[in-house]
Amino acid sequence: MQSSDLLRDIVIGMSDGLTVPFALAAGLSGAVSATNLIVIAGIAEIAAGSIAMGLGGYLAGKTEIDHYNSELKREYEEVETVPHKEKEEVREFFQNLGLSEDVQQQAVEEMTKDKEKWVNFMMKYELGLDKPDEQRARKSAFNIGVSYIVGGIIPLSPYFFVQNGTEGLKISAVITLGCLFIFGFFKSRLTGVNPWWGAVRVTFIGAAAAACAFGIAKLIQG
Amino acid sequence: MQSSDLLRDIVIGMSDGLTVPFALAAGLSGAVSATNLIVIAGIAEIAAGSIAMGLGGYLAGKTEIDHYNSELKREYEEVETVPHKEKEEVREFFQNLGLSEDVQQQAVEEMTKDKEKWVNFMMKYELGLDKPDEQRARKSAFNIGVSYIVGGIIPLSPYFFVQNGTEGLKISAVITLGCLFIFGFFKSRLTGVNPWWGAVRVTFIGAAAAACAFGIAKLIQG
Repeated sequence: MQSSDLLRDIVIGMSDGLTVPFALAAGLSGAVSATNLIVIAGIAEIAAGSIAMGLGGYLAGKTEIDHYNSELKREYEEVETVPHKEKEEVREFFQNLGLSEDVQQQAVEEMTKDKEKWVNFMMKYELGLDKPDEQRARKSAFNIGVSYIVGGIIPLSPYFFVQNGTEGLKISAVITLGCLFIFGFFKSRLTGVNPWWGAVRVTFIGAAAAACAFGIAKLIQG
Repeated sequence: MQSSDLLRDIVIGMSDGLTVPFALAAGLSGAVSATNLIVIAGIAEIAAGSIAMGLGGYLAGKTEIDHYNSELKREYEEVETVPHKEKEEVREFFQNLGLSEDVQQQAVEEMTKDKEKWVNFMMKYELGLDKPDEQRARKSAFNIGVSYIVGGIIPLSPYFFVQNGTEGLKISAVITLGCLFIFGFFKSRLTGVNPWWGAVRVTFIGAAAAACAFGIAKLIQG
């Protein structure tokens, strides 16, 4: 589970990191010929994007924990103050599963004997909330932010070495679309989807974003 | 439910649209003084980001549906070919709820009488998969993409009217941070979190991303 969480974070960060800086650099190549500006814009984007995703993810994780804890407190209170209402909600859950009234009744009796178990049940099956892991939120945000930076440097790297934007774009497109294809392949295998279709899908999104950014930038620049 | 889904899409698209183009433009203001380049880069970013989010979300939705359907098929097969194993999994679910063996047995018997109900139960509680809504995926992607564009135009708009990058940045910062504050306030109310803390959080992420992009761009440009 640990390693698949890490993999998931890397996949999220890298896929955005590969796509958006690539498309931005492609767009600028359509408007300016000097690569130093493309590099500056690309790095500014990587900084902005990695912070928005990393810090955003970290604080969203904290919020989720606060939300969980406040709901947990409320459920404990409700189990104390309106136990008949809460018991009825447990019964409805078993009713929705299609169990007979007899079994519903027995299950409710057994479930509500232990208050902690009862509250955990309500949290998970009434509210659909799993207990969030605080440390996990922190690590996850860090992993996503770093993966975004690593992913973003790949499409940008050719512009470091060539002086002409169009030239840089050609090399960047080959490298990035190749990476997106490989990446989409393995990403799809993780999620159990046909890997070839996944590879085509991820590559297509990157190409479409880049083409659109290029076209629009050329249009504005006249 | 319909309207809260729409609201959720707008919140996701707008918050990224406000943050990343704002930070990118801020970063470029630290490196170039001509606003026309900032505008071109900003619009290229908006095009790239809205496509990556919108198209990405649309195709991810399609993938999710494929995944659900392939798992559904597999569960139907397993219920036919290894019913005792699948029954045991149902029993384990009730065991984990803390029910007595007696009630577990009865619940399993009742649950597995109807194959469709049984499979739906396995999908939801063994695999944790809810039936995805195809039309919803399409609409959601569109809403997020459009919200990203609307959000992105806000921080960019001052640069249309002033000739100097630093001047544009000052106005952009005031407008965007104000929008992020208002936006964070209402976003938090949606998710049941303290709205003032939410407003501060969202504003802080935007400011941090912009400050970092600005600093790095200035550093590179030397």
